[in-house]
Amino acid sequence: MLYFIGLGLGNEKDITLRGLEAVKSCDKIFLENYTSVLCVGKEKLEELFGHEIIVADRDLVESNDEMILKDASTSNVAFLVVGDVFGATTHTDLWIRAKQQNIPVQVIHNASIMNACACCGLQLYRFGQTISICFFTETWRPDSFYERIVQNHSIGLHTLCLLDIKVKEPDFKELMKGRTVYLPPRFMTCNQAIDELLEVEEKHGKGVCGPDALAVGLARVGQEDQFICFGTLKDLREVDFGAPLHSLILCSPELHEMEREMLEYFSVKKLSA
Amino acid sequence: MLYFIGLGLGNEKDITLRGLEAVKSCDKIFLENYTSVLCVGKEKLEELFGHEIIVADRDLVESNDEMILKDASTSNVAFLVVGDVFGATTHTDLWIRAKQQNIPVQVIHNASIMNACACCGLQLYRFGQTISICFFTETWRPDSFYERIVQNHSIGLHTLCLLDIKVKEPDFKELMKGRTVYLPPRFMTCNQAIDELLEVEEKHGKGVCGPDALAVGLARVGQEDQFICFGTLKDLREVDFGAPLHSLILCSPELHEMEREMLEYFSVKKLSA
Repeated sequence: MLYFIGLGLGNEKDITLRGLEAVKSCDKIFLENYTSVLCVGKEKLEELFGHEIIVADRDLVESNDEMILKDASTSNVAFLVVGDVFGATTHTDLWIRAKQQNIPVQVIHNASIMNACACCGLQLYRFGQTISICFFTETWRPDSFYERIVQNHSIGLHTLCLLDIKVKEPDFKELMKGRTVYLPPRFMTCNQAIDELLEVEEKHGKGVCGPDALAVGLARVGQEDQFICFGTLKDLREVDFGAPLHSLILCSPELHEMEREMLEYFSVKKLSA
Repeated sequence: MLYFIGLGLGNEKDITLRGLEAVKSCDKIFLENYTSVLCVGKEKLEELFGHEIIVADRDLVESNDEMILKDASTSNVAFLVVGDVFGATTHTDLWIRAKQQNIPVQVIHNASIMNACACCGLQLYRFGQTISICFFTETWRPDSFYERIVQNHSIGLHTLCLLDIKVKEPDFKELMKGRTVYLPPRFMTCNQAIDELLEVEEKHGKGVCGPDALAVGLARVGQEDQFICFGTLKDLREVDFGAPLHSLILCSPELHEMEREMLEYFSVKKLSA
């Protein structure tokens, strides 16, 4: 059996009882560690599970998946995913390949930022399509997400923005010298995302994510030191959201009364008050 | 402290370790039981928690919340929600009232149908606004959801349809005789939802949920006997989805290749093959 197990939002204790039982039945445990990132060390998980964990990078999951699948046909294997299992589309592929090989699969769900983001007060059924914002470089500034913000905005919906994570990125300068060296992990902050949104708004000018647009910045959702801040992009740009992971929600042009009432508890104005 | 704790998708073991720890620290435990429904008896939960559980109906939570809040200011109280905490907007209100009374609150997230529905292969970031479909009566056939399906459809998004649940509904015939008698609980099936969608499509005619529209019916997501079926509304209408809870997803007019590949494993055609 191949178990796909969601780990939830960041703490080793965010696994469900059912997830833990499944893990304990497994001979091999892989941890997917590139679409999201566990906020505790894998040692903490190993202690809880009483079992070694193999960190699976993108290459292992996407190109070298036989390592995961070959044991799953004869014994129990766990594939752990931070958040929920199908939050990232890449795991669909592993699921399909397991099915193709007639390996039984079971999915054990958990919270992901896609539903937990409602903790700020914005109502889940008023969210449109989710977008991803990636790190701009000098020469690569992809902004196809803008059109999706425009679409959501035009029908009165919020937009959840997932922010880029760079884990185990090769250092190209070193690579050219024939050495494989990885850059330190990078996690996009709300502030960086806002800079990109403002730049793209400046370029396209449809008035959906300018300095006065209302938004919510979320950091470390579901953890003890979770931090949520609501305000204009201009104001949020100056706020220190602390350690990763961050997400940002662009609010619908209209807020419901109860949304506004809850958001006020996270207002940027309270920080300076 | 008032803990808002998500219970996940239906089994008592779907609670997280952190949720269980919090519950065990509580003097009083309420279970919200009207926006969704626990698929195991509350006795199973009580056994796991070693503590009695008070079932909170809509009236208790919305009008009589002092019962929940008064103890939370001096001791730990748990408010359990099937799925995730803020899946239903009604709990926002309880959160706000706790804050108004300076009661510390903590939210412990879990999976909800809003993210777990991706288990069928449709990609979460391609979902638009979620709609609710309620039981039509002879005289009350609200179809404002139709416009939202049209909006999602027009920008190429899937629509998750949450289906009506009637729990603890008074029997009006008995009420007129002066007796308070509750009707047996009712849970809308995928088949009933499809009948309503077809009727509304017939009336408005924009071609978004007619007999040939592609959809996915989901039953008991995340449970051992989960059942998922993909096909046209016309075909799904004839499928027996079994026990509650059911949900339905109307597919975007265009499916990605990997979405289609995963959906095929749940195809209605396989049932008759």
